[in-house]
Amino acid sequence: MAVAKGLEGVVVDTSGICLIDGNAGRLIYRGYDIHDLVTNLSFEEVAYLVWNGNLPTRPQLDDLRRRLEQERAIPANLKAAIRNLPASSDTLDVLRTAISTLGTGIALTKPDMPTAVAITAKIPTINAAFNRIRRGQEPVDPRPGLGHAANYLYMLTGKDPDSIKADSLNKYFIALADHGMNSSTFAARVVASTWSDMYSAITAAIGALKGPLHGGAPAPVLKMLQDIGKPERAEEWIRGELKAGRRLMGFGHRVYRTTDPRAEILREVASVTAEKTFFALARHVEETGNRVLQAYRPKRRLYTNVEFYSAVVMHSVGLPPDLFTSTFAASRSVGWTANVLEQVANNRLIRPEIEYTGPMNRKVEPIDQR
Amino acid sequence: MAVAKGLEGVVVDTSGICLIDGNAGRLIYRGYDIHDLVTNLSFEEVAYLVWNGNLPTRPQLDDLRRRLEQERAIPANLKAAIRNLPASSDTLDVLRTAISTLGTGIALTKPDMPTAVAITAKIPTINAAFNRIRRGQEPVDPRPGLGHAANYLYMLTGKDPDSIKADSLNKYFIALADHGMNSSTFAARVVASTWSDMYSAITAAIGALKGPLHGGAPAPVLKMLQDIGKPERAEEWIRGELKAGRRLMGFGHRVYRTTDPRAEILREVASVTAEKTFFALARHVEETGNRVLQAYRPKRRLYTNVEFYSAVVMHSVGLPPDLFTSTFAASRSVGWTANVLEQVANNRLIRPEIEYTGPMNRKVEPIDQR
Repeated sequence: MAVAKGLEGVVVDTSGICLIDGNAGRLIYRGYDIHDLVTNLSFEEVAYLVWNGNLPTRPQLDDLRRRLEQERAIPANLKAAIRNLPASSDTLDVLRTAISTLGTGIALTKPDMPTAVAITAKIPTINAAFNRIRRGQEPVDPRPGLGHAANYLYMLTGKDPDSIKADSLNKYFIALADHGMNSSTFAARVVASTWSDMYSAITAAIGALKGPLHGGAPAPVLKMLQDIGKPERAEEWIRGELKAGRRLMGFGHRVYRTTDPRAEILREVASVTAEKTFFALARHVEETGNRVLQAYRPKRRLYTNVEFYSAVVMHSVGLPPDLFTSTFAASRSVGWTANVLEQVANNRLIRPEIEYTGPMNRKVEPIDQR
Repeated sequence: MAVAKGLEGVVVDTSGICLIDGNAGRLIYRGYDIHDLVTNLSFEEVAYLVWNGNLPTRPQLDDLRRRLEQERAIPANLKAAIRNLPASSDTLDVLRTAISTLGTGIALTKPDMPTAVAITAKIPTINAAFNRIRRGQEPVDPRPGLGHAANYLYMLTGKDPDSIKADSLNKYFIALADHGMNSSTFAARVVASTWSDMYSAITAAIGALKGPLHGGAPAPVLKMLQDIGKPERAEEWIRGELKAGRRLMGFGHRVYRTTDPRAEILREVASVTAEKTFFALARHVEETGNRVLQAYRPKRRLYTNVEFYSAVVMHSVGLPPDLFTSTFAASRSVGWTANVLEQVANNRLIRPEIEYTGPMNRKVEPIDQR
C-alpha cells in the first residue's frame, strides 16, 4: 500500500465546520465566507456559529456572552500552578500546562459544550496572568462587559483598551478561529477519538500549535521585519536568506495555491491599526518576497500566509512577540473544541498504520557476544 | 476522494521500530520477536533496543542504566505542582500535567535522546509520588541499583520489592513498550511533525492513552473480574453485558485477527504472579468470553487483548486499578519517544484533509432577522 507521508490529500472524515478552497483562496465557516464574518460580526457570534452551526439569535448571543464572562476567572490552584512555573517559560508551554491542570480533579466525561466555552473563556486569562506574573506584576481580573478581544487587552495592561486595537484583535480572532484539519485540530481529534476528555484533546492541540511549522511562525515574522528595518533593505535581506538555504517565514502554505484569504483580511486590519511606516515596510516586504520567491521557484506559487500579517496585527495591538502563538490559541480553541465535539458525536478511533522497513528474524544473543 | 474514517488501513509513514503482524499474531521490535525479548532481557535492554535499533553491549547498557537512575528524581517545582493538584485527580491527568510542567522553563529544542531517557525515567516517579501524596504519605525517593520495574514498586510502597513481582512487571513493561501506530504514538508524531518539542508530544500521547478505547480499559477489566467473582457466574454475566448492548472490556483489537501475542505473554506472567484462584477466574472468563463472543458475532474473531491480562498482572503485583493506565505509560513512553525521534529525523508535517459536507453560500443577516 502507498505510504501517505504527512497524510497530504488523505481525507480523514467528513465535517460540517469549515471549508478551505485552496485554489480559489476561500475560507468558509458553516457556510459563511470569512470576509462576511469578519466584516459584520463579533468573535462571540462567530464562536457560537462554529460551535452550533448557526448564527445566534439575540437571546442566544446574550447567553453565550454571559457564560464566557462567568468562565473567564481561573481557580486559585491554577494561579498557584502558573506562579510555580519558571518566568523564562515559553508561553505555549505555560498554556499547555495550565489547560492540563484545569483538567485535573474532574472525572472523565464526554467532551461537552460547557467545557468548550470554559476553555475558550480561560485561555486569554491564562496568557495575560502569566505575562504579568513573569514581569513581577499582579494578574488583572477579567472585567465583565468587555468582549473576548477587548477583555484580553484589558487583562494584559490593566487599562481601558483602545477601541481600534480591540476591534483589530476581534477581527484577528474571527479570522483564525478554525482552519480545517490543521495539525493541532487533527491532534485534538486523534486524542478525542480514544474517548479521552476535552482537556486532554486541547492540551495536545496546544503542543502541536507550538511547532514552528504550524503556529510558531508569527514571532519570527516580526523579527524578520525588524531585522529588515527599512523597505530598501528588503530585497537584499530576502535574497540572502534564500541563498543561505533558509525558509522565508510568513510565505507559503500547503493548502493555498493563491493568497491566503486570512492574509488579505489581516492586511486590511493592519492598514487601520498598524503604525504607518511599519505597515509600509510590511507591505513592501510582502511584495518583494512574493516577487523574489516567484523568480526563485518559478514552479511554486508562494504568497504571504496568515502568519505574516498576524505578526503585524498582533505587534500593532501591543502584544509582545512571545504571546503571538498563545494568542492564536485564544482564537483557535473555538475550532479545536468544535472539532472535538464533532469527532465524539460520530466517533471512530483514529489509528492509522505504518510500514515496517526494519530488519527481520533477529535472535537475542547473550550480552557478551554482541 | 474516499473518506478514510479512523484512518484504518492508511499507511502514514515507514518505520524501523515495530512490526505488528495481525494475522499471525506476531509483534516485532527492531527485528526481534516480543517473546524472545520478554524471555531473555530486562526492560532497560529493550528500551535501548527500541531507541537505538540494536541491543546494547555491556558498557552501553551500564551507561543507559546510570542515565536512567540519574534522571529518576523529579525537581522541586514538579513536586510542588503535583501537591497542588486535587487528590481526587485521575492519575493520567496528573501525569499529563506533570510531563507538561517538566517541559516549561526550557527553550524549544529538537527532540533528542537525553529527553527521551529523562521522560521515561521520571514517569514512574511521578506516578508513585502522586499515589503517595494523595494518601497523605511522603513520596519515596528512587533507590539506585534497582531496575525500572523494581524501583517503581519500591517507590510505591517504600519496601524492598518482591523479586517475582518485579520480574512480572519487568516483563509487562517489555511487552507494552511499543505497538505501531496506536493512537497515542500517532498523536505524539502529529505534534512532533510541527517541529514542536518532546514534552509537547508526550503530553499529547498521555492524553490519548487516557481514553477507554485505547489505554483506559485495564481498570474496567479488573472491575469485570471482581464483579463476576466466581468462574460459574462468568457466562451469565457476559451474556447479560452483551444483551444490554455493552462492550466487553478486554476482548477484541482492531489489528489482531488472532490472539494478541502480548495477551499470551501476560497470561504466562499472570500464571506465575497471580493468586491461584484469581488466575483461574481470569482464565475461565477468557475462555467463556471467547466462546460466547464467537457465537454472538460469528463473523468476527474476538479474543482477549493485551488489556485483559494487563489488568490481572498489574493487580497481582499490587498496583491500585487507577494506576494501571499511568503504569502503561511508564512502558509506552519508550515507544512514544522512539517514534518522535524517528519522526523528526525525516519529518513531514502531518496535516490531512477533511471533506466539508455542511451548508454553502450563506450570508450574514442582521441579528434581529435571524
